[in-house]
Amino acid sequence: MTHQGLITLLTDFGWGDGYIGAVKGAILSVNPWCRIVDIAHGVSAHDVESAAFILGQTYRFFPQGTIHVAVVDPGVGGARRPVVVTTPDHLFVGPDNGVFHLVLEQEHHVRAYELVEDRYFLSAVSGTFHGRDVFGPAAAHLARGVPPDQMGPGRDPEELTRLSIARPIATETVLAGEVVYLDSFGNLITNIPRAMLKEFAGDAGVVVEIEGDRINEIRQTYSDAEKGELVALWGSAGFLEIALREGNLASARGWTKRTAVTVRRKP
Amino acid sequence: MTHQGLITLLTDFGWGDGYIGAVKGAILSVNPWCRIVDIAHGVSAHDVESAAFILGQTYRFFPQGTIHVAVVDPGVGGARRPVVVTTPDHLFVGPDNGVFHLVLEQEHHVRAYELVEDRYFLSAVSGTFHGRDVFGPAAAHLARGVPPDQMGPGRDPEELTRLSIARPIATETVLAGEVVYLDSFGNLITNIPRAMLKEFAGDAGVVVEIEGDRINEIRQTYSDAEKGELVALWGSAGFLEIALREGNLASARGWTKRTAVTVRRKP
Amino acid sequence: MTHQGLITLLTDFGWGDGYIGAVKGAILSVNPWCRIVDIAHGVSAHDVESAAFILGQTYRFFPQGTIHVAVVDPGVGGARRPVVVTTPDHLFVGPDNGVFHLVLEQEHHVRAYELVEDRYFLSAVSGTFHGRDVFGPAAAHLARGVPPDQMGPGRDPEELTRLSIARPIATETVLAGEVVYLDSFGNLITNIPRAMLKEFAGDAGVVVEIEGDRINEIRQTYSDAEKGELVALWGSAGFLEIALREGNLASARGWTKRTAVTVRRKP
Repeated sequence: MTHQGLITLLTDFGWGDGYIGAVKGAILSVNPWCRIVDIAHGVSAHDVESAAFILGQTYRFFPQGTIHVAVVDPGVGGARRPVVVTTPDHLFVGPDNGVFHLVLEQEHHVRAYELVEDRYFLSAVSGTFHGRDVFGPAAAHLARGVPPDQMGPGRDPEELTRLSIARPIATETVLAGEVVYLDSFGNLITNIPRAMLKEFAGDAGVVVEIEGDRINEIRQTYSDAEKGELVALWGSAGFLEIALREGNLASARGWTKRTAVTVRRKP
Repeated sequence: MTHQGLITLLTDFGWGDGYIGAVKGAILSVNPWCRIVDIAHGVSAHDVESAAFILGQTYRFFPQGTIHVAVVDPGVGGARRPVVVTTPDHLFVGPDNGVFHLVLEQEHHVRAYELVEDRYFLSAVSGTFHGRDVFGPAAAHLARGVPPDQMGPGRDPEELTRLSIARPIATETVLAGEVVYLDSFGNLITNIPRAMLKEFAGDAGVVVEIEGDRINEIRQTYSDAEKGELVALWGSAGFLEIALREGNLASARGWTKRTAVTVRRKP
Repeated sequence: MTHQGLITLLTDFGWGDGYIGAVKGAILSVNPWCRIVDIAHGVSAHDVESAAFILGQTYRFFPQGTIHVAVVDPGVGGARRPVVVTTPDHLFVGPDNGVFHLVLEQEHHVRAYELVEDRYFLSAVSGTFHGRDVFGPAAAHLARGVPPDQMGPGRDPEELTRLSIARPIATETVLAGEVVYLDSFGNLITNIPRAMLKEFAGDAGVVVEIEGDRINEIRQTYSDAEKGELVALWGSAGFLEIALREGNLASARGWTKRTAVTVRRKP
């Protein structure tokens, strides 16, 4: 399952310090043939929710057997448990702090193990840097074939930490969601999935409202809008997205996460 | 030609979202043995011209057979065509929006193909993320040996999109260029190539003028100047560059792209 | 020693230009099988001291035989010498400008060679970009087995450039150190190593003072503090660190490098 030795890294470490380097070194010291793939390192510091969102939209594009290490870990060294989570196609390593929320939502046949066998850790484990000392080395051991169940006792996946991410609410007349992620282009990604809107709207056209602005249709691509025009469309992860053609909507309007987005049927 | 499986990525995705990760996953899912090399991901959003400049100064340092994926693509999903461009030594994949301008300027024996064969794409192609759904997978198929001409019909390279990048103008008395790129150190890179200045100046010394400042000679390295002094020199890409020794010239003076730079012969 | 072909990169190039890409291309053109690992590219422009700190805290986590290329090089093309530095387990390539300060402090059995044999460089060496033209290619040649002593004459490691980094001073009553690094989380890392504090304090508890604030104990992890509370703890590199639980201390208080940190024994 892990024969390609692919390990992805998703962190809030940024590129300004050497923290990413230390994690990579620790991985390669266990298993020099691992191939490490950077997913994102510019997650806002301690923003577990954004990390969960990014991981949830990204991991399934990787080959079967890829090991995903997610380290956005404000509670490092504290009560949160280090875990290995497995699905039929992927393995995940990181803190049980909600960073695996969307993986757990999207997958069936999940298994989880608490990471306790310290022979798979760096010999001296610090209290402040488990990415380097625990998660990286454990991932490298997984990549050389150590079965997850040797790393610690199984845990009920139902008991893993979830985030309180709002789901959209559909009434007779309105589908009410909210912005759950702002990307670096300033696009606003909502929690409204395509299937839910389709069920709500049927064959009717829809109007999307955000902070008093009305958008009168859902477009296929950014290019269907005029430069500077507000556009609603299906983002690459299958959720309703609101953008400004070739502009940064989040900074232009000051809209943030949690901004309400409502959808109504056209009369 | 592509036996090493080297694929470079040049995008405006930043490291804050997982977009880079999704592209890498899509590539590795087609061809797990590709080796992906990050060139730059901090290009300003939608800045095709800067991406063209960066690609044009970088690709030729890579080994023969390298596949370069450039995704700065404000018109994603719209009318611009996805293309494969080949030169005797390199392959390029991306939107035909001008991002290959400098490659086309610098190379002979260019061939181009419109990317239409969707068996080389991800099975579901979104309207907003062709880096992941089209360009990445196509590059991975090229890396496993699919010939470019199987990906779609040939196109006349002369008809590919060019940018309107100014070329310097030489008169009897003055060589008039402009700043075409600001790098992250705040250095100003002009459109004046070394050979053109040599032809203009002959054996005479030159004076470089920018916004009323006069620089009385062209130096070899930054270190030939005093700390904080304005220095003109030949940048690493062979163009006249203006910098501040150990300082950020762009932010110190507020100079931007398009700032005029003129060269005169010393009397 | 170098059979895995691992080359790390540590630069101040950022991800906005293609400079990192050009270095990687130059490495892979010499030796297409090198595996390049990004350590950090967001070091502040020209900040040799921070680069030295990052390298010093990171390199030892990599496998034996790894080649570390460090290019924070404000004096590029000037008088500073390009060097190869070797320790029993690692090789280092870069400018002799202090970037190897902590390696030299931490290692015994260091050897150094001035990099002068230009057959190991790119055929045309610019005056402004030795990362691409000198250091990258030399590292790639080392990775394919060229012995360091073929790259130029040996130099006395004692004569390599050191930085004037302060060491803490212990008196009868106080251990006086200072902040030497701010990381991107806003944590303040001091120059006070664990062993030195232990020797100073013996079995007594300690009080840490910074800018009039008093911290009454040294904690194990960030999680031992309340959210927003000032916490002193042993950072991942073994130095005393001061942080704000889930906050950015450097920006919250405006504290910078060189801020004094003093430790006293509890009565």
